[in-house]
Amino acid sequence: MAIRTPKEYLESLKDGRTIYVQGQKYHDVTGHPLLRLALERCLVDYVMAQEPRYKDLLIERDDNGEPYHFTLKPPTSAADLLRRRDIEQTAARTLGGKASGSKHTGPDGLHALTATSRLMDKEIGTSYSERVELLRKELKRIDAAIALGMTDVKGDRSLRPSKQKQHKDFYVRVVDKSNDGIVVDGALAHISHGTFANYIIVLPCRAMTEEDEDYAVSFAVSPGEKGIKLIHPRGDYFEEGNYFDFPHSARLGYSDCIVVFDNVFIPRERVFLCGEWQFAGPTAYMFANFHRQDADAYKVALLETMVGAALLMAEYNGLEKDNIIQEKLSWLVFYAETAETLGRAAAQNPVTDPVSGYIYPDSIMSNCAKFYYADNYHQALKLIQDITGGIAVTIPSAKDYLNPEIHQILEKYLAGKDGIPTEHRIRAIKLVSDLSGTYEQVATIHAEGSLGAQRLAIHRVADLNKYRAAAKRVAGIQDGTEHPLYSQLIKWPQPLKDIIK
Amino acid sequence: MAIRTPKEYLESLKDGRTIYVQGQKYHDVTGHPLLRLALERCLVDYVMAQEPRYKDLLIERDDNGEPYHFTLKPPTSAADLLRRRDIEQTAARTLGGKASGSKHTGPDGLHALTATSRLMDKEIGTSYSERVELLRKELKRIDAAIALGMTDVKGDRSLRPSKQKQHKDFYVRVVDKSNDGIVVDGALAHISHGTFANYIIVLPCRAMTEEDEDYAVSFAVSPGEKGIKLIHPRGDYFEEGNYFDFPHSARLGYSDCIVVFDNVFIPRERVFLCGEWQFAGPTAYMFANFHRQDADAYKVALLETMVGAALLMAEYNGLEKDNIIQEKLSWLVFYAETAETLGRAAAQNPVTDPVSGYIYPDSIMSNCAKFYYADNYHQALKLIQDITGGIAVTIPSAKDYLNPEIHQILEKYLAGKDGIPTEHRIRAIKLVSDLSGTYEQVATIHAEGSLGAQRLAIHRVADLNKYRAAAKRVAGIQDGTEHPLYSQLIKWPQPLKDIIK
Amino acid sequence: MAIRTPKEYLESLKDGRTIYVQGQKYHDVTGHPLLRLALERCLVDYVMAQEPRYKDLLIERDDNGEPYHFTLKPPTSAADLLRRRDIEQTAARTLGGKASGSKHTGPDGLHALTATSRLMDKEIGTSYSERVELLRKELKRIDAAIALGMTDVKGDRSLRPSKQKQHKDFYVRVVDKSNDGIVVDGALAHISHGTFANYIIVLPCRAMTEEDEDYAVSFAVSPGEKGIKLIHPRGDYFEEGNYFDFPHSARLGYSDCIVVFDNVFIPRERVFLCGEWQFAGPTAYMFANFHRQDADAYKVALLETMVGAALLMAEYNGLEKDNIIQEKLSWLVFYAETAETLGRAAAQNPVTDPVSGYIYPDSIMSNCAKFYYADNYHQALKLIQDITGGIAVTIPSAKDYLNPEIHQILEKYLAGKDGIPTEHRIRAIKLVSDLSGTYEQVATIHAEGSLGAQRLAIHRVADLNKYRAAAKRVAGIQDGTEHPLYSQLIKWPQPLKDIIK
Amino acid sequence: MAIRTPKEYLESLKDGRTIYVQGQKYHDVTGHPLLRLALERCLVDYVMAQEPRYKDLLIERDDNGEPYHFTLKPPTSAADLLRRRDIEQTAARTLGGKASGSKHTGPDGLHALTATSRLMDKEIGTSYSERVELLRKELKRIDAAIALGMTDVKGDRSLRPSKQKQHKDFYVRVVDKSNDGIVVDGALAHISHGTFANYIIVLPCRAMTEEDEDYAVSFAVSPGEKGIKLIHPRGDYFEEGNYFDFPHSARLGYSDCIVVFDNVFIPRERVFLCGEWQFAGPTAYMFANFHRQDADAYKVALLETMVGAALLMAEYNGLEKDNIIQEKLSWLVFYAETAETLGRAAAQNPVTDPVSGYIYPDSIMSNCAKFYYADNYHQALKLIQDITGGIAVTIPSAKDYLNPEIHQILEKYLAGKDGIPTEHRIRAIKLVSDLSGTYEQVATIHAEGSLGAQRLAIHRVADLNKYRAAAKRVAGIQDGTEHPLYSQLIKWPQPLKDIIK
Repeated sequence: MAIRTPKEYLESLKDGRTIYVQGQKYHDVTGHPLLRLALERCLVDYVMAQEPRYKDLLIERDDNGEPYHFTLKPPTSAADLLRRRDIEQTAARTLGGKASGSKHTGPDGLHALTATSRLMDKEIGTSYSERVELLRKELKRIDAAIALGMTDVKGDRSLRPSKQKQHKDFYVRVVDKSNDGIVVDGALAHISHGTFANYIIVLPCRAMTEEDEDYAVSFAVSPGEKGIKLIHPRGDYFEEGNYFDFPHSARLGYSDCIVVFDNVFIPRERVFLCGEWQFAGPTAYMFANFHRQDADAYKVALLETMVGAALLMAEYNGLEKDNIIQEKLSWLVFYAETAETLGRAAAQNPVTDPVSGYIYPDSIMSNCAKFYYADNYHQALKLIQDITGGIAVTIPSAKDYLNPEIHQILEKYLAGKDGIPTEHRIRAIKLVSDLSGTYEQVATIHAEGSLGAQRLAIHRVADLNKYRAAAKRVAGIQDGTEHPLYSQLIKWPQPLKDIIK
Repeated sequence: MAIRTPKEYLESLKDGRTIYVQGQKYHDVTGHPLLRLALERCLVDYVMAQEPRYKDLLIERDDNGEPYHFTLKPPTSAADLLRRRDIEQTAARTLGGKASGSKHTGPDGLHALTATSRLMDKEIGTSYSERVELLRKELKRIDAAIALGMTDVKGDRSLRPSKQKQHKDFYVRVVDKSNDGIVVDGALAHISHGTFANYIIVLPCRAMTEEDEDYAVSFAVSPGEKGIKLIHPRGDYFEEGNYFDFPHSARLGYSDCIVVFDNVFIPRERVFLCGEWQFAGPTAYMFANFHRQDADAYKVALLETMVGAALLMAEYNGLEKDNIIQEKLSWLVFYAETAETLGRAAAQNPVTDPVSGYIYPDSIMSNCAKFYYADNYHQALKLIQDITGGIAVTIPSAKDYLNPEIHQILEKYLAGKDGIPTEHRIRAIKLVSDLSGTYEQVATIHAEGSLGAQRLAIHRVADLNKYRAAAKRVAGIQDGTEHPLYSQLIKWPQPLKDIIK
Repeated sequence: MAIRTPKEYLESLKDGRTIYVQGQKYHDVTGHPLLRLALERCLVDYVMAQEPRYKDLLIERDDNGEPYHFTLKPPTSAADLLRRRDIEQTAARTLGGKASGSKHTGPDGLHALTATSRLMDKEIGTSYSERVELLRKELKRIDAAIALGMTDVKGDRSLRPSKQKQHKDFYVRVVDKSNDGIVVDGALAHISHGTFANYIIVLPCRAMTEEDEDYAVSFAVSPGEKGIKLIHPRGDYFEEGNYFDFPHSARLGYSDCIVVFDNVFIPRERVFLCGEWQFAGPTAYMFANFHRQDADAYKVALLETMVGAALLMAEYNGLEKDNIIQEKLSWLVFYAETAETLGRAAAQNPVTDPVSGYIYPDSIMSNCAKFYYADNYHQALKLIQDITGGIAVTIPSAKDYLNPEIHQILEKYLAGKDGIPTEHRIRAIKLVSDLSGTYEQVATIHAEGSLGAQRLAIHRVADLNKYRAAAKRVAGIQDGTEHPLYSQLIKWPQPLKDIIK
Repeated sequence: MAIRTPKEYLESLKDGRTIYVQGQKYHDVTGHPLLRLALERCLVDYVMAQEPRYKDLLIERDDNGEPYHFTLKPPTSAADLLRRRDIEQTAARTLGGKASGSKHTGPDGLHALTATSRLMDKEIGTSYSERVELLRKELKRIDAAIALGMTDVKGDRSLRPSKQKQHKDFYVRVVDKSNDGIVVDGALAHISHGTFANYIIVLPCRAMTEEDEDYAVSFAVSPGEKGIKLIHPRGDYFEEGNYFDFPHSARLGYSDCIVVFDNVFIPRERVFLCGEWQFAGPTAYMFANFHRQDADAYKVALLETMVGAALLMAEYNGLEKDNIIQEKLSWLVFYAETAETLGRAAAQNPVTDPVSGYIYPDSIMSNCAKFYYADNYHQALKLIQDITGGIAVTIPSAKDYLNPEIHQILEKYLAGKDGIPTEHRIRAIKLVSDLSGTYEQVATIHAEGSLGAQRLAIHRVADLNKYRAAAKRVAGIQDGTEHPLYSQLIKWPQPLKDIIK
């Protein structure tokens, strides 16, 4: 058991995995510029773990003194959850507002399995907990990069898994079973960092009915396993290392591949759900409890960057005292601080699962955080673009700026407020332009649960009777229902004569 | 020193104070139905204090064992701030979503003076702290109902106090001084509960310049003092006790009077600021730190009532399964829970004033809470009305419903979903109608600081350099500025060859 | 045939009709202050018709030279539709932003029946057209005040008329038929001006299925007919004639009564639909085509008043040069002008029904108008209240202002910008307060079709294939579909070499 | 005089003009893929002009029978303005939602100069009209591609042109004058199609004061003139001709170059304003009157494409019947139809300039159109992305899709609703992804005037007194002001006894 160096981590990926990107097949995760770009988001965790400054933050020790990455540890307190948040934000700030890849989403799945396996063992007498702890041990041992596979490709969204028409593999399913293990088919989309993981933990993405029992399956597998193909998205960016023109997306790394399972064998000890369809939903929800915390944490680093870009543009354009601009900037600051406060509150007010005893961030609060920032993201973009001006899309390239024939011209004419170097203004403009692209918009809405998923979640977790009780009390509706927050209040209004008696 | 009964409290108001309401002069605070309605919001604190169930929540004991109301105690921990919040919410839930009146805003002013007087004593050698403690002692002694006077009538909003044109009294000011005390002139608007208070604590409403030094004044005074007139708003409501038609506003009690000072003498020991214009701003801001907590707390009880009304209407109309309705309900639940989370987080993460040592709720978080719920309130109303239907304004009156000639007809035709008593549906409709009135809209935007005030506050308290640092890091702007959150991060991106070395 | 005087109109209502308001029964439409208030909205049409200045606008002449109100005439051109709009707006401006009552909604129903009866006669061989023309003749003859009855009380909104559970009368239905006529039962809600009408034209409110055929019924009837009860809403307002405190709602007149039909006999010649369920939907939709034009027209007068109130408040508070305030004012002006432009465009671009030959406003445009102003109304209110300040709900009453003991004090302290009389500022504040009440909010959302109704309408009338064709062209999707706007375009992009050949 | 072929047009650009793109200098407008891409937007006008189907639409004939492009003709009626709109929309639909380049913005400038020169000649006795007509003659003669240069680079946005600090060339200015002509310096940003124009018409971008008189300058010049440099933006797109992955932006053509004037001589007859600073504002505003019409016209073609993409995605995902999705789609349809209606109304209701007699689209309506679609654009994007799903950014590339090793896998797993070819779904996803990029967002907000510019414009052109009059009437404020719409209304309310007398 050990903390691996970046080099050791890279070595561990040389297992001949099958990767497609831009129409070419690769077996080397550094084979294409897009892969290299995406890879960095996993690498950063290993680089940080070597840094003395992050030792206390990132490294935990086992009972026998062996070091391992903190995110593999089952959280037991608000402090643990806040530390998770701190780790995530530090990495995201390092990456200019993107989540790092090898130590977050995957461990969220491990935590979900830990909780759900305890529940299953208790309720239906399985012994999945042991398998989960075996997996944890293995993940610690190899200091694994872990991805999470949950989002089935889904086909017709109005039909359940077993009711799909063209074929039955729109959701990952068990096609064969034996004493040794199971065989699975299917494909998962948007699997962040799957290409660069040592393990992918696969969970069901929704509650299942009995008819869907073949789809109630969970397992862990190496992306290098026979029968697995990793198909990479195109990405928007091509010029490796051009941080001047693409200050954000040149670090971005579209890492969200399609993972195809073609008759993949999973040994028995790596299977954590297999037909127990009643537990598909709970597993998915418990994962969400952890995973939303990631979102709530790293997104703040992105919002800080966006709001900062707007602040700089206002200043560089000489408009920082303009009231209308100030109003927009205030909204942006509220936006970022509200997102931070909500996410932090979820960690600060943990919930203990009554059955498994597992602790996780308050799911109402974390859903509020996710919904809030996603629902308002496009408004933020609009304000930032409004402040910046049309130059965000008509700015010349770095190559123009560096061309000696026109460098002085651009220095002269792209200047803003006196005292601000023109280069700084150009860089801030490039940042706004780059932050406005498709990726972050769509990822903010859909990653870690879409707006619709948040809505379903809040309906499930919120105490709606609290609201009903509040309204009934005022409206004078007496229907026999009670709620602790409202039923113990004193009667009101009371006649004045009673009050002053 | 003692906790007064409601009757004792009412007795204490019989000091001949001069009240105008609906064009008539009264000296009795129960003289007019509107006064009685407003009075209840102060009375409730005294009623609750007599309840055994609230003893632990509301009552604190002095070193000598004397009981006093907890809100007079300087908070020293997050637990104290959360208890303040709990008190405020319990009262507001009792009152159907309105703040109670005698123990919140006034004590906020006392806390502000406690902190600012310490600051002034330290920085300019005054001895205001002693006076503040004397006042606290007196307030405890009489178990006072305390109002806060801050919002000057202002005249031309584009001009500072001393630059006003028609006259110089648009902001409260010192018109005479002597060894014994000061004489003040002016008028304050929107003074909640002033009519029913034993003391009004007056604070400056803004930062002042040297030219405005006559306006840098703070003091405490009884509303019964010679030269004070209390002019009451009209209110929307007239039918005392008709809780069927006006389930919310019949409990509402417009209590926000105009307080006129006509050459009112304030003895020296009740003066807490007098010409020290540099401290006008800090006093106002420190008050806001506490006062916004009230808003963040009690408003949630109103939002619970509103959201509950929408939930009931959806169900009573048979539309609780309709997806579009569900989406709107989800938004409303997010709205209420987000407001609750933000407000609670502010209390949970207190700030210690470095100079006075005073503790108060995090002002970024509490501003986020206030801005969030105020900025989105009209959207909430719209959704609730959308769900309810036009019947919110075309519903017959209680008297129609109770008229035996048409009672059965209304029972038959105003029914909604089978199984829901028609009366329940009517009551829920009445609640929506009543919640949609002018008062709560305007109060939600303007009370405890307008949207504009929130914007100024967030600009003052937020760490804008954090945002700038985030953007500069990504944009590659190096201008010598640093920020602890960003300057300690590892360099990124690093060349792959460096990483794997 | 003649244009009646107001007095003649009032005489015509003395038919012993049964009215309930505030729990009392009346047979006199002027019997209660609320009735008098509501009555004015019908009266105004008769007052205006006596005015020489409106003769050309309001009065049309029959072939035989008899004068009648223009709104009874079937429109035949854009000019006719614009004249309808002009009439509506002039009356609404007269009434401070409210629709007048006797000549708009009712005639919209007449137009719908004119078109649909032609369609039915043609398609299924009925002779309803004759009956409709008989009705028109009668309405002209008596210069009738005409109401429209469409909104059934509905019960459980998730169930069709015939599937309701508690009873079968949640939608108006035929309970008996004979050669002489039909007998109907049921109740209609929100029937504007029903109490003051000479005729109510009843239409189905939705498309019906065969099972609902008893509910596919349309007829005209006098509200004084045996078996009809008119139950009035409570309203917010009580002080008759207090235009100072209630400048808008004292003119408002909640006129939207519940009309109950208890075994009401309708003679054969006044029945226009009876069981032909396929034509229930078309009748309802055709009515909407005309009725939305009313909404689009009169609402602009309300918006003008609201935006004007905000402009005055900004000026009276001395903030008319403040950039943030200006931005809000601009939004409000855009809001009002956009609503006006959309509504006017619908009239300017009329549609001719291919079957009946009837002309009506463009229904896409008129739906856009209605949806736009309703969807944004609460945002407008928010901005207006934000500009005005908390004083909107803490302003004293007229009686206080006129009390000589405090008149000078209020003159002094409620002053705003120098040069503006305090009374003007108070009046503007009162206007904002009064405009913010429940009624206009709910009416703006729900009257003339809810937001949901607009959404259904736009889905029905918009040319969705135009959009699909646009997207397919760009995306390169060739699926054999065509659209005239897109299929005739030249191919693009074309290779440069082809272009320059 | 003649209509040129595309080839002739291309020949006309071979004048050795100096173009920079991606750090390289070119003299050939087809020298770089980015240039070719941008060039197409001008080429299309020449291609269309050769098409018989567009002859009636595009080609006008002079008195002597010579054909010329209609957009050069001074409009004299609503029909002319609607024809302008039709031309613009047809081209934009051809180009997938982008404006064509050679015949719109430039002619808008010509129209502005036509109107303003008449005004100047009349008011200050100049003879600019003759020069303008000479220019028109020349533009017709060569069937010119015409660009418009207005947006100065501006420097510190809080300072006027003459007050800028680093240098005095942030706005284009006259640096020398002689009898023969003038010499100008400066730089313009965002000059659409400047690189591909035969003439750039330069106008001042704002009202000027006397101190800024050197900046009050207007002229026409060829981009090939000595001293002019054209610096191109980078653009997002690199793969020429990849319409599968980039169905929209591969046709997009960032054409908005920076035009640098380095001591450029302008002969006297091409100068249309030179120091008459009072006319700088009117020229800019008159240009905006025409130019906003372009925006209002072509943007609709983009919105059609966007809304269509959302409709297709809903259907292809099997969600077209889902209520929540339907609600979003309805909003999108309202959005596009409202934009269309507003823009069309502006053309349909033309204004005649009282001094010059020139006709132009209603500027209130056209501002409403521009503001409306720009203010709501990000909301539209959000809904479209919400409907589409995360696949918008995780979709593999065309090369992957065409790779035989994984083609069948992608066919299988990227399928949506049964019956929809997977390729169609992928193409629709690619379209959404491509439409969500930075360019259209920023261009929608800023091109043809920013949101702030719209706000200033509506304040200038709207009849604010109409609003004030409406509010004063209701509020009862009598201050001697009058407005024709309100002062002629009958008095209201009138006492009932007066009405029925």
